[in-house]
This record gives sequence, structure tokens and C-alpha cells, in this order.
Amino acid sequence: MSDITSLQAEVKRLQSELNTLDVGGEKITVSEYLLKRLEQLGVKHMFGVPGDFNLAFLDYVEDSPAINWVGNCNELNAAYAADGYARVNEHSIGVITTTFGVGELSAINGIAGAFSEMVPILHIAGVPSTDQQLHKTLLHHTLGDGRFDAYRKASDQFTIAQADITSAATAGAQIDYLLTELITHVRPVYLTLPTNMVAVKISSASLSIPLTPTVVPNDPETEKFVLEEIAKLAKVAEESDDGKDGVVILVDACAIRHGVRDEVKELAEKTGFPVYAAPMGKTAIDEDWERYGGIYLGSLTAPAIKERIENARLIISVGSLKSDFNTGNFTYRIPTRNTVELHSGHTTVQYASFPGIGMKELLPKLSEVLATHRASALKISVPHYRAVVPQDNEKSIMQDWFWPRMAQWFKPKDVIVSETGTSNFGLLDVPLPAQSIFVSQILWGSIGWATGSALGAAIAAQDRGLGRTMLFIGDGSVQLSAQEIATMVKLGLKPILFILNNEGYTIERCIHGKRRKYNDIQNWNWPELLKFFGDDAKGEKSRSYTVRTKEELEALLADATFVSADKIQLVEVIMDKYDAPRALRYVCFEYNAGLR
Amino acid sequence: MSDITSLQAEVKRLQSELNTLDVGGEKITVSEYLLKRLEQLGVKHMFGVPGDFNLAFLDYVEDSPAINWVGNCNELNAAYAADGYARVNEHSIGVITTTFGVGELSAINGIAGAFSEMVPILHIAGVPSTDQQLHKTLLHHTLGDGRFDAYRKASDQFTIAQADITSAATAGAQIDYLLTELITHVRPVYLTLPTNMVAVKISSASLSIPLTPTVVPNDPETEKFVLEEIAKLAKVAEESDDGKDGVVILVDACAIRHGVRDEVKELAEKTGFPVYAAPMGKTAIDEDWERYGGIYLGSLTAPAIKERIENARLIISVGSLKSDFNTGNFTYRIPTRNTVELHSGHTTVQYASFPGIGMKELLPKLSEVLATHRASALKISVPHYRAVVPQDNEKSIMQDWFWPRMAQWFKPKDVIVSETGTSNFGLLDVPLPAQSIFVSQILWGSIGWATGSALGAAIAAQDRGLGRTMLFIGDGSVQLSAQEIATMVKLGLKPILFILNNEGYTIERCIHGKRRKYNDIQNWNWPELLKFFGDDAKGEKSRSYTVRTKEELEALLADATFVSADKIQLVEVIMDKYDAPRALRYVCFEYNAGLR
Repeated sequence: MSDITSLQAEVKRLQSELNTLDVGGEKITVSEYLLKRLEQLGVKHMFGVPGDFNLAFLDYVEDSPAINWVGNCNELNAAYAADGYARVNEHSIGVITTTFGVGELSAINGIAGAFSEMVPILHIAGVPSTDQQLHKTLLHHTLGDGRFDAYRKASDQFTIAQADITSAATAGAQIDYLLTELITHVRPVYLTLPTNMVAVKISSASLSIPLTPTVVPNDPETEKFVLEEIAKLAKVAEESDDGKDGVVILVDACAIRHGVRDEVKELAEKTGFPVYAAPMGKTAIDEDWERYGGIYLGSLTAPAIKERIENARLIISVGSLKSDFNTGNFTYRIPTRNTVELHSGHTTVQYASFPGIGMKELLPKLSEVLATHRASALKISVPHYRAVVPQDNEKSIMQDWFWPRMAQWFKPKDVIVSETGTSNFGLLDVPLPAQSIFVSQILWGSIGWATGSALGAAIAAQDRGLGRTMLFIGDGSVQLSAQEIATMVKLGLKPILFILNNEGYTIERCIHGKRRKYNDIQNWNWPELLKFFGDDAKGEKSRSYTVRTKEELEALLADATFVSADKIQLVEVIMDKYDAPRALRYVCFEYNAGLR
Repeated sequence: MSDITSLQAEVKRLQSELNTLDVGGEKITVSEYLLKRLEQLGVKHMFGVPGDFNLAFLDYVEDSPAINWVGNCNELNAAYAADGYARVNEHSIGVITTTFGVGELSAINGIAGAFSEMVPILHIAGVPSTDQQLHKTLLHHTLGDGRFDAYRKASDQFTIAQADITSAATAGAQIDYLLTELITHVRPVYLTLPTNMVAVKISSASLSIPLTPTVVPNDPETEKFVLEEIAKLAKVAEESDDGKDGVVILVDACAIRHGVRDEVKELAEKTGFPVYAAPMGKTAIDEDWERYGGIYLGSLTAPAIKERIENARLIISVGSLKSDFNTGNFTYRIPTRNTVELHSGHTTVQYASFPGIGMKELLPKLSEVLATHRASALKISVPHYRAVVPQDNEKSIMQDWFWPRMAQWFKPKDVIVSETGTSNFGLLDVPLPAQSIFVSQILWGSIGWATGSALGAAIAAQDRGLGRTMLFIGDGSVQLSAQEIATMVKLGLKPILFILNNEGYTIERCIHGKRRKYNDIQNWNWPELLKFFGDDAKGEKSRSYTVRTKEELEALLADATFVSADKIQLVEVIMDKYDAPRALRYVCFEYNAGLR
């Protein structure tokens, strides 16, 4: 291939050689080697739960000046937190450490979610010594039948690479291999660290060479051809003069995960093409950008936006990820003939696929090539995407009012973590401020994820100097992982937790069993939560509120103390049991029509 | 084989025929068929969390007059609850229903624990329609890559049988196959129920034939030989007259799981042999039985008991399960030459193994054969296993005092659920009353298990008319699954929850990192927990206490209102951070010696 490829191969070879040969350099423990690599990758916090097979490793974590141990309440929450941390700490990774069997399996749903949504997480499992594994010792946390590979086999399903540290000779190379896979493919990987490997000494020589993603550069000839093809389609699309949109850009999740936010912004600025986002790509482009038109989710799209996109002559889709909820129940109406798709490792132009042509390199060139259309593109105005707050005499807090009202209240750089359920559907429909980050799990959709994720997001926001972290979650969902709020209290984080109390699983009521008991839950005393978790009898460490009417919420939103978010705060928002945001009402209508 | 075998085979054949042919009989839905089978197996409660792929099935559950839906706070807790339910509702099974991917994976650690500890659980996963699976539709809750078999592959590792319902023609036969495997092997099985199969109609004809375990009868000739061999060994052992024990019985977990409690009792009564229990066999034999001598756990055993067992000339071990924690860190000192092991499907006599000779049939015959030794056996007294409460001037509640004191306070038929940690080690060392049930997870040892398990145990105790349910758990462990206490409140259960507040993970401090921060936790306001979960502002639905001294605890234990357990009650017991029960101090000393 190219020079870059051969150079990259040489770097890998040298790293591997430095790792496996004793070439001098300071000797350090496997644990220190691993932690140093994590530090190099920008990791400042590690999530997890202690257990007897990882305690010795945790000594090194606790002693590390660079990496802080966040003891979570349980492993699933820890995985969710690592996921939220990785989403907000862009260009870095999330890390979770669990113990053999019981711990790692508790986390597996969180890891699978990160696999599904392409979030980079390193899962370190502390496991029995290599001797104990070899002799199939009947240890606690085993299945009692001598199988030491069962947990690994389960993890294989949800990680893109795995490594078992089994000797000093290969430990460094294995760690480097695994982390390189992680940062290249930005999906979870799995590492087992036996108790007898934790303090084994290895050479630190290769640490002087930082790890980089294994990127195969685009083949120049193919890339040139692809650029020409796209340029031809864009020319035809832009030259038509019937008042419809020529080219529009549609940005999705993988633009964030594969780190091309800036490249997409450049494409939009240089070309003037209108930009829209898929749900999982929300806030990939600042939503106050003048040529940004809103969210496209198939038939659930607000009608004005829907028409604009579906009538466009060419759609340049960046980093798309097409699941049911991300496409409005598979109701995208965009013909393949009118579509160019840019992905991390391939490009499609109409019906043609070009393997190996990745967007990171292609996008800047595309911006140059298509910049000529800027003048014509700007002639067509993009409807400003704004939050419209309904004006009526309703006193209670209805979904159709709540979300646009909150949208107006958010500030730049806020990190907004949203649970699958009414929160996602409500927030998708309203614009968020510049530089805000919308964190949601639309494809995997595991209920309870947002609470753990908000912990990780709040930590990353603090590390990155972003604004307030906010959690929006229903009273049903928050019960799954509520204890992780105690970890927020423990760490002195100051998120604002909006708990929408609508007496149970409202999203499920929309789908099926509207009045069924199985959609009811035990009602908790939400305003007592922070005091209960926080050893805060005097109420000095936190503030809690219940709002039942628009008027009460308005008063709160205008309260400077509340707005300042100087303590952890909880807001119980009383909402109607059967009320749902517009898009959810629609999706459930369609969903149920599909079931019939 | 025998007549019984051929008759059993014929029953299976007829069931299968009735299932797959349309032989008339009332047509019912697959859901109703499944629920009817569960009802026949004695299931009165089903655990789980609703999710969009199981909602339609839950309609049938909610409408079932025989089976009650327990909506759990999350799926892992639901699996723990099903486990606790199955342990206490002996001769029946536990059932959990989850949703595709997110739900079933959250439960997997609980299922793996049941696999490890041989607890019979049916895991029903509501999954997408057969059509959606066939077309690899990119649904939410998928991995985004079209793999619909990944969750099944993970579950395969932790269940002994699996079935995917895919057609009306085979649904009944598959359900019958799966449940038969479940009740035969008393370990978890996994069933996927696609949304389009929930209401498909099938013949109900085979429901008239109840399901029974597929037991292969012992081969009479082999069994006769085994009985003769054991009789010879017992004769030699009992005829020696040096004052040491001749034959002793050691009972373990599988005696409970495979339903031979009564047979073991009969063996003990007819022969007069002293009986001891392994940790996982605790309460398999009533601990107030006059010839019961206590718990044997290798080098951790109380010295008087240890000597008696290890010096016995022959040990008849029933249903043994040899893990590290169940054998005192592998320090059993019982020579194979002096051992007979009875298992569900095989028997060993000294070094000889006899496959196919199961204990259920063998035990009654063994009781007859060995009854001749009763007179000689009774000559040797068994030291009475009693709780000795230390008398000293210590005011605070020390572990060495607490557990014997609690042992004196327990009542017959109490169900005592104990968490891995100080609670297990403390309770193992003290005798429990007649007909009480000790519920613990010694092999799998997943922290947080006991809270969920206590929910299931409390429900089963209510169903069976047993006594009070009590939970013993540390403040670290309870944080993993604390929300499930809200489900106890929701159902109006009345357990007593003893939360040992010793500022973190004390069992881990014993093992490693005594003063490390990673073993610290956020301190919760425990006395507020029930009010927080219970919507109980006036404190009318629950009672909570904190006890800091022996005196305060004594006062509580003497309080008739507290003793009556007429409401759900929580007792926060303040204990020293570094204090541990005798057996735990010892195991940790050995554990650490092993690490060095």
C-alpha cells in the first residue's frame, strides 16, 4: 500500500519487538504498564467494583497519580458509567474493572450496549492465577465444573478483541494489541488479568512509542474516482433550479465516534449545504448552526423538516447507523439513488460500494471539491430549528410543553443525558444549545442506562471543563440503577437529576398494556433520595424539589441558585401517566400497527 | 433397562405425539400452555421486568389466576429473586421473564449463579418475531450487525438446555422437553418466546399428563453390589472399638437440590450415625437433631468438630459440592479411602466409581442395610452443636458475640438469607433452629445476591406458610441491589432486614487492602431506606432501627412488637470496620498465606 501503511506496520513491529525482547529500559509491573498506556490514551478515571481477584491490581490503580478509581455501586452501573464517560470524553476511552465471573457477567449488558453503539470501552476482569486456571481449581465464582473459558466465551459475543495475560514475555505486546484494536475500531475489548500477573515485571521500553489507531490510508486512485463520482452527482443536484434542496448533509452517530465532527463542520461551512442529524447523531453538529435544520427520523420527523430532506436531490450521509428507533421505525424515505454514504472504513455512492475509502481522509478533500457549490447552496434558506413552547391555559406539565421549555433553558456546553423512553423522544424533538452534548442510547436502549451514564458523563464533563450535567429519566427507568446516584454524591459531583414521575413505564404503556399492572411501579419518595444516599440529614449537601405545575417549574428555572448548579440537585417532575411526547405517540401508533 | 425406563420413554413419546399432532383437545395459546405447565410444577410467582418484546406474554401472566407477576426493579435482582424463590420453594422451580438482549443479559450473572449452585430456574426471554429474526432486522436491542444468536450463545454457557419457540407444531413439545430437563437436572434452562408465538394456538391435550423428571433407575445388579461394598466398609468401621467414630454422615448442597432431605433424615435415624453438614448443606438436616454435630469446613472447622470428623473411619457424604469456600479453602482432610460419596447420578465407594447409581433410590436401601449398626453407633455421643455467647464487658456489637446471640433468638421455621461476606461466615458457625432454612450462595458468591434472593425467599416462605424471613447483609453488599427492597414494600412482605454497617467491604479488607480506599463506600442513611422506598412519610408501613451496642440490640430482640414481624423492618447494626467472624479471620489468613 502506501508509505504510511508500511511505516505504521514498522511501528507495530518495533513496539512488539520492544515488548517481547528484553531490550533494557526500566522494568515495571504489568499493572503499571497497563495504567501508563491508559494514561497516554487520556484516561483519568476508571470504573468498577472491587472483588477478590482484582484487589491487588486496584492497589496500583489507587496508587496511580494519573488515574482515579471510581468505586461504583454495582458492575452494570459501572459499565454504563464507563460508556457515558467515553461518550463525553471524546477521543479517549472508558475503562471498567470487575472481578472474575460474578463481576464481569454483571457488567455484560453494559458492554454489549457499548458494542452495539460503538463506544470504546476496555473491560478488565481480574481472574484467578494462571496455575489455578490450568488446574481447573474449583474456586468460588466458578461454575463448579472446571470450565474457566465460559465467561470469556460470553464476552467474545460483545467485544471486538480479547486478550488473556498469561506471561511476562507477551504481556506488553498483548496490552498494546488490545488497546490498538480498541482505539482503531472504537468498540469494547476484553482483558483478563490473572492475580499472579498483576505484579510481574516487564520492560517499559515500548511505552515511549504512543499507541495509534491502525488506519489503512485510502487508496489514492480509488479515492480520486469516488470524489469525481460524488462531484458529478452534486453538480447535477445543485444545478437544478426548481427551488428544492440540491445537496443536504445528514450526520449520524459514527461521525461522533470516529472523531470527524470537525471535518463535518468544515464540509458544512465550505459548501453551505443544509445539515440535518439522525437521532444518534444529535449534537454532532451544533444545533444553533445557521444552516442546521433539525432531526430526521423518517415518518416521525416534524413535517416541515421531513419534506425538505426527502425531496433533496442528493443526501451526503455521514457515519450512519440504521436501526429502527434511529430511523423512525424504518421509515426513511431516502432513495439509494440519491444517497452518498460516508463511513469509517468504506464509502457508498448510489448503489456502488468502495471498500477501504474512509471518511476521515475523504471529508477534507470532499469539502474542497464541493466548495464551488457554496453560492448556489446558500440561495436556499434552511428553516431555523427552534423550540416552540405551546401557549395554552394548561396548568400541569405536559410533555409537549416540557421539552421545548427545557430546550430554551439549557445553556451552551451543558451535557444532557437522556434515558430511552419519553425523555429521548422529547429531547430529540427540540434543539440544544451550541457545544452542548446530547448523550443517549437509542439503538441498544437498555432501561436504567442513563443513570450510570450520567455519572460517567458528569465526571468527563468535569475533566473537560464543560458545563452542567443533566439527567432526564422516568421514575420507572431510574429504579433499575438508582444507587449510582450515591456515587455522584460520594464524588461531590453536581448534576441536576430530572426524574419524570409519571407512575411507571409510560413508554411501555404506549406500546402495549396501557392500563396493565405490570407497567406500574412502587412510588418512591423522590425528594428524599439525595438525603438518603448522601448522609445529609441537614440537607446541606444537596437540594431536592418537586414540581407539579408549569408555574412551579418556571419558578425553579428562574431561581439563580438552582441554575448555578453548585450542589447536586434533584427535580421530581410530576407528569401524567398516559402523556407522551409527539414522536413517541407516533412511533407507538406505528409500532402497534406493525404488530397487528 | 428396566420396566420403569421403558414406561417413562413411552410417556415422553405420547406427550410428544400429543404435542405435535392435532389430536383434538381444547386449543390454547402457547402462553397459556406454558403457564399451565408452570402451575403444574408448583410455580405461584414469576419474576422479571417488562420490556417491549415480552409485554404481550405478560398479559397472559397477569390474567393467569395461578401465577402472580412480581415486577422487579431490574433483571439481575429478578434472577436473584427467582433463585431465592426456588431454594425455599423446594420441589418446584423459579421463573424469570426478561426482554430481548438488554433484559436477558442483565440477568445472566444471576442465571450463572443458579447454574453453579444447581438451582432450577426457567429463564424466558421475550424476543422479536420469527420473521424479524429471519430477516436480521436492525431492531433496537440488537448489536447492529444482524446477529440474532449472540445472546443465546452467551446463555448457552450458563444453562443446561435451551429452546427457541418457532412454530405451533413444535411449541408444546419444546416446552415439555425444556421443563423436563429443568426438573431432572435442577439447573437453569433458557426459552426464547418470539412476539408472534405468544398467542399462537396449540393443542392442550398433553397437559393432562404431568411432567416428571427423566430418572434412569439404578441398575439392580450394580446397586446390589454397591450396597454390599458400603455394608462391608461400615461393618469394619463400626466394629473397631477405640472410642473414635465409626461411620459419620456428611450432608451437602445437592441433598437439598435433589430432594433427598427426608431420605438423609431416615438414614440418620435408622443408623444412629452422627450427621454433619458442609456449608452449602447447612439446614439440610435440622440443626437441633440430637445426633447432629455441626458444620465441617476443613481447617476452618471448630476444633472439636474437626477432630471427630477427620478421625471417623468411614464418611458417607451425601450430595457433596467441593468448592474452595465450601471446603474451607480446600483443606478437607478426609481420605478417599475412608469415603463413600452419594450423588444424584452416581456413587463412589473409596476409589471406585459407579455411574448411574443415584442416591434417591439408593438411600432408603442403604438405611435398611446399615440399620444394624444403630446400637453400636449410639454408644458414641455426638457433641451438641450449640451457640455459645461470649460473656465479657465489651459494649459494642462484635462479630463473635453477634452471631451466637442471633442464633439463640431465631425461631423454628425462620428463613434466614445470608450474604457472602461476614454474614455467611458468621451464620455458618452457629446452629439454626429446627425447620429453619438457611439460604446462601457460597460457591458462586455474587455480592448483592442476598437482597434479591431474600425477596424470592420471603415470597416462597409466605406461599409455604413458613416463619419470618430475615436478611443478613453488609452495607457494601446491599448497595448492589438495594432497590429490590422496594419490591418487598410493594408486595407488603414483612422480612426483617439486618444491615451490618461496618463502613465498606469488610470481607475484602480481610483478604487484601485493609485500609485501602477502594474498600470504602458512601454511607447511606439506612434508617431512612424503608420510608424512601415505601412512600411512607408517616412511618406507618415499616419500622427502622439503629443499634450500636449490645444493650440496644438486646432491647430490640426482647421487644414483642419487633419479634412479631408484622411489618417490614430494618435494623442497622453498627459494627467495627475491621472486625470479622472467626471463620472469616481464618480463611483470610489462609487465603493470604496462599497468595504469598
